[in-house]
Amino acid sequence: MHHFTSIHDAYNIPQLVNEALLMKRAPYSDCFIGKNKTIGLLFFNSSLRTRLSTQKAAQNLGMNVMVMNVGADSWQLEMNEGVIMNGDKAEHVSEAAAVIGQYCDIVGLRSFPSLVNREEDYSELVLNQFIKYTGRPILSLESATRHPLQSLTDLITIQEYKKTARPKVVLTWAPHVKALPQCVPNSFAEWMNHADVDFTIAHPKGYELAPEFSGNANICYDPKEAFEGADFIYAKNWSSYEDYGKILNSDPAWMVTMDKMKLTNDAKFMHCLPVRRNVVVEDAVLDSDHSVVIQQAGNRVWAAQTVLKEMLLSLAKKESPYLF
Amino acid sequence: MHHFTSIHDAYNIPQLVNEALLMKRAPYSDCFIGKNKTIGLLFFNSSLRTRLSTQKAAQNLGMNVMVMNVGADSWQLEMNEGVIMNGDKAEHVSEAAAVIGQYCDIVGLRSFPSLVNREEDYSELVLNQFIKYTGRPILSLESATRHPLQSLTDLITIQEYKKTARPKVVLTWAPHVKALPQCVPNSFAEWMNHADVDFTIAHPKGYELAPEFSGNANICYDPKEAFEGADFIYAKNWSSYEDYGKILNSDPAWMVTMDKMKLTNDAKFMHCLPVRRNVVVEDAVLDSDHSVVIQQAGNRVWAAQTVLKEMLLSLAKKESPYLF
Amino acid sequence: MHHFTSIHDAYNIPQLVNEALLMKRAPYSDCFIGKNKTIGLLFFNSSLRTRLSTQKAAQNLGMNVMVMNVGADSWQLEMNEGVIMNGDKAEHVSEAAAVIGQYCDIVGLRSFPSLVNREEDYSELVLNQFIKYTGRPILSLESATRHPLQSLTDLITIQEYKKTARPKVVLTWAPHVKALPQCVPNSFAEWMNHADVDFTIAHPKGYELAPEFSGNANICYDPKEAFEGADFIYAKNWSSYEDYGKILNSDPAWMVTMDKMKLTNDAKFMHCLPVRRNVVVEDAVLDSDHSVVIQQAGNRVWAAQTVLKEMLLSLAKKESPYLF
Repeated sequence: MHHFTSIHDAYNIPQLVNEALLMKRAPYSDCFIGKNKTIGLLFFNSSLRTRLSTQKAAQNLGMNVMVMNVGADSWQLEMNEGVIMNGDKAEHVSEAAAVIGQYCDIVGLRSFPSLVNREEDYSELVLNQFIKYTGRPILSLESATRHPLQSLTDLITIQEYKKTARPKVVLTWAPHVKALPQCVPNSFAEWMNHADVDFTIAHPKGYELAPEFSGNANICYDPKEAFEGADFIYAKNWSSYEDYGKILNSDPAWMVTMDKMKLTNDAKFMHCLPVRRNVVVEDAVLDSDHSVVIQQAGNRVWAAQTVLKEMLLSLAKKESPYLF
Repeated sequence: MHHFTSIHDAYNIPQLVNEALLMKRAPYSDCFIGKNKTIGLLFFNSSLRTRLSTQKAAQNLGMNVMVMNVGADSWQLEMNEGVIMNGDKAEHVSEAAAVIGQYCDIVGLRSFPSLVNREEDYSELVLNQFIKYTGRPILSLESATRHPLQSLTDLITIQEYKKTARPKVVLTWAPHVKALPQCVPNSFAEWMNHADVDFTIAHPKGYELAPEFSGNANICYDPKEAFEGADFIYAKNWSSYEDYGKILNSDPAWMVTMDKMKLTNDAKFMHCLPVRRNVVVEDAVLDSDHSVVIQQAGNRVWAAQTVLKEMLLSLAKKESPYLF
Repeated sequence: MHHFTSIHDAYNIPQLVNEALLMKRAPYSDCFIGKNKTIGLLFFNSSLRTRLSTQKAAQNLGMNVMVMNVGADSWQLEMNEGVIMNGDKAEHVSEAAAVIGQYCDIVGLRSFPSLVNREEDYSELVLNQFIKYTGRPILSLESATRHPLQSLTDLITIQEYKKTARPKVVLTWAPHVKALPQCVPNSFAEWMNHADVDFTIAHPKGYELAPEFSGNANICYDPKEAFEGADFIYAKNWSSYEDYGKILNSDPAWMVTMDKMKLTNDAKFMHCLPVRRNVVVEDAVLDSDHSVVIQQAGNRVWAAQTVLKEMLLSLAKKESPYLF
């Protein structure tokens, strides 16, 4: 694995999941694999889970970690080419990324979408500029359209908690007070479409994800129907892809409640967090045995550690091709 | 020691002080005790001494350290239960704390009081929510009503500098331009009341600390009288507990001056810092041999390191009960 | 080497450059020299290269690193003596610096000039207050008038890329939209005046550097003339020293272009970064083989690592004078 920015960078997903579950049992068995390797974690946006779990994963592998809040700690970056830089951006990504590449063996990057310009967001400008200019493997810590470390975590968690060979997994849209990116649902859909699950996406009309992400999922427009017989309820708000970045609906019927959970096959409740209580999901659900959101967040470490190990092995193969 | 949030978590205080003074002589003798253990240091407020000394203490013990400015780096947290989270808080403490507990073996937390609502502040809402939800030992880095690492440091420093078996220790209020918490005086009083010292608190009327903290201390309302024969002058401003969070007095007669220091038994001058020069205390005092504020701040490392060692040993006992 | 704040702290410059180039080939050969030593990196201003490269250099030497954005993470500092501190500054540098000195073996410091008061800036108040009060070796991460780690890097880079024994090095002023410090040109001039190079400074009238920095350099007021036969073009904007902190000129004829690069002896193009594209220098130059700005930034690690190694050796000599 060179970069890790989407499911397409993972060539054997079941093996990745198994590796992560083994790592969870022996977290320090690869504690020398990252010796003298440095990861830079660059945040253009807020982060709690990703910040801490990736830092921990890298330390478990013996790496040096440098964390930077790009805007606050360093300079505003110009992302577009050919610009006369006489505005508020002090540095161009082509220099910043290349320089960071001089100091880091792997570069982790979080950069949210604007939710203003769909074409620009879906072109993954920032992520791709860093891929182009760092000259190093890039680990996505959530980009404009995807959050692959979250999705791998989700798959690990489903593998851990599933009670049938092919569980019914439901991604359900839920209301929210702010317009949120489509990254998590996009990415979750992409991974579920590759997994051995029966996959449904439930949302109000107008909240259809981009077809390249929803793929062959069953689509359901009823806030209750999809819950029937579900083994996993994965809740998430997102803003509209069609009417890009807009909030079209705030119908509380889409909030996840105990009443709706009773329709399921004693489903586990999942969410990537942060979650707004009593807006996206009732307290009663989060505080019940249905909820595995904390365990799910805990698995972020093992997803990151597995991916970093794969990336470090790829680097080692490049450096010493005859050793392998 | 499981948590460390007040003097009540320390069962043998003289031993803790001795351990700290030993550690100061051999800082790296326990450099493997924290191997593969992670501490998260969470700051809701500014910090210099606490941030750096706790980080250093943890590194001296071989721990991994992750530092996070909660508001700036991650999300605004909702602290109250049962809330419909449709405001500006993106995450509830019940998730945030539990998730942080997934990544950290010990969680350090700094959260100042609002100084608006006394009942809420003195209920230690934030600290207690973290205790409730992280599932990990909590190390207070100063909470709404106490600063126990500072107070342990103060006791260590008094032990180091005292010239009589039972020194006279005076906590004196001093003027300030901003309304400050009662944490440091509360905590200092609490620890002095348990120590083998003759303890006096001097302040203007209206600045009485909560009785559970002032305890049996001698109270003195005269800005000079308390200095007579003192071995240690510990200066600190605080806002009123009675007229909660208010500044009732700014009489410069309460500033610590060389004239007043001359009344003492060649007392050492202490302050937790940061200190406003020529408002709380004259330059002449801080720049004289009376002052041990820098050595006191230096002792923050040994207080933190001793407490962290105790917490790590407790964790080890839990993990391997038959080893002990 | 005790402090490192200017060229005057380096007693054998060619040896320092050679050491850095050796270190670049064997980055981890001194990985135990910094064991149990802590460096604090204090930033009063933004930083990307300096932040990451110094952190990496210290880690390569086995040091513990603590990074702090002074204003955001801790308290506003009063730098002047004898002040009644009843304003917005919560702590005096005499305490803050001395306390940091309690926790760190070496203190790195970045503090830009105000560009308002020349006398104050050129007195290096902040840097000197830290030297006075920390009681520790100070590593300048760019101060009000100099950027010595950058200049050592520049000399290393010139040594790496030079094709003649005594290359012609040109420092050329270039336009910018903001008023920038003179630190980098001051410092570069100071180091070039000590190096075995033919050194020219080119700038519009009114942009003369302070004579103690420009020294015996050739001065050229023509935006093209200086380029003729140059082996290295070092571009940088700075504000006026004479009409202190002012922008006197924004003539685009001073931008570095391919047309002007053609006048050179196939010169390497250098810049300390961040650089504003198409304001300071054309895209075409930065994207051509002339440019070594990324390699130059990469050399920041080896400059910092060499200097830190020297500082650590000096500390070791002090601690164990009979070992050497």
